[in-house]
Amino acid sequence: MGRPRTPLLSADRIADAALELVNATGGFTMPALAARLGVRPSSLYNHVAGRDAIVELLRERAMSEVELPSHDPDELPRPWREAVADIARSYRRSYARYPRLIPLLTAYPVNSASAITMYNTLAATLVRAGFDHADTLRVITLIDYLVLGSALDVAAPDEPWLASAEVGPEFAAALATATPNPHRADDAFEYGLSVLLAGLGA
Amino acid sequence: MGRPRTPLLSADRIADAALELVNATGGFTMPALAARLGVRPSSLYNHVAGRDAIVELLRERAMSEVELPSHDPDELPRPWREAVADIARSYRRSYARYPRLIPLLTAYPVNSASAITMYNTLAATLVRAGFDHADTLRVITLIDYLVLGSALDVAAPDEPWLASAEVGPEFAAALATATPNPHRADDAFEYGLSVLLAGLGA
Repeated sequence: MGRPRTPLLSADRIADAALELVNATGGFTMPALAARLGVRPSSLYNHVAGRDAIVELLRERAMSEVELPSHDPDELPRPWREAVADIARSYRRSYARYPRLIPLLTAYPVNSASAITMYNTLAATLVRAGFDHADTLRVITLIDYLVLGSALDVAAPDEPWLASAEVGPEFAAALATATPNPHRADDAFEYGLSVLLAGLGA
Repeated sequence: MGRPRTPLLSADRIADAALELVNATGGFTMPALAARLGVRPSSLYNHVAGRDAIVELLRERAMSEVELPSHDPDELPRPWREAVADIARSYRRSYARYPRLIPLLTAYPVNSASAITMYNTLAATLVRAGFDHADTLRVITLIDYLVLGSALDVAAPDEPWLASAEVGPEFAAALATATPNPHRADDAFEYGLSVLLAGLGA
């Protein structure tokens, strides 16, 4: 008894193929996905409810490696800035693997368990730190902006700005300090995170 | 003498078609672009040097509406935070019109005159405010993260998080404060901008 040459269709295999299409073309359609998997579009619906469900599988994949701080109830809670910084770093590390997914994920409502768990932890940490509910949502959104912008930047070319004739002296001097990626993007993210956390206390 | 039914091919028309493809599918290829314009791929190269040049046309289009503060040499320069905030607001307003362009633009080196002019103005403002060259590049990068993350958020669904069973009490209370877009994203951007500018002084 030989194995089938083509693995059986599954939600996981559909997500793999969708991710390949997103990485190659920036998006996916159900017909293109079916063509890539060598099946009819209707077969996809035996495994996933539709395009939205596939986007959530991709989000779950991006979020699945986000590490949340463990909280030992016998220990004092860590300072909120440290807890938020660790979550933001882990969130960014995960998303930086899939920069081309980002515009797709931001265009669909968040509904994956890993994402909700991370937002729950952020919200609980911020409310405990004294932020009211409206500001808690604003801070979470600001962390999203920093993480998503920075994850896109990891995929930027090593020289993200071409030093053309029109570059002025101050910008040229600033550009001369840039290091190759991923160092430049890592450095800018850490700088941004510390500015953000300092600004939240001001 | 009748007009030709199809407008003549031009760099502008190529950019229009590329933008339509990006909005519809998240990206564009030279063959798909040629097919959409009803020409052979080789005809495109009579008007643009290649894919990179088309990306720069799209960046130029996104940046062309960014308004930079005018500087009357007889007046005292404005406080740097106000100048930076105005540029960031205008930059975001422009990019929010083209959220699907963002991952494409960040994947290619910046080489459009409007973009370089904006970065020149930001760098000159920051250096005048006392930032060293390395920090000037970091602050510019941070503004990019805020603007790009926020421009993507303008295209987010009205309920960017689905309140599923797993939403914890603090996150649920935070979500309950959300207003419909574009108000929510505008509000989060202004909050983020003020946090960032406060953090830069801390």
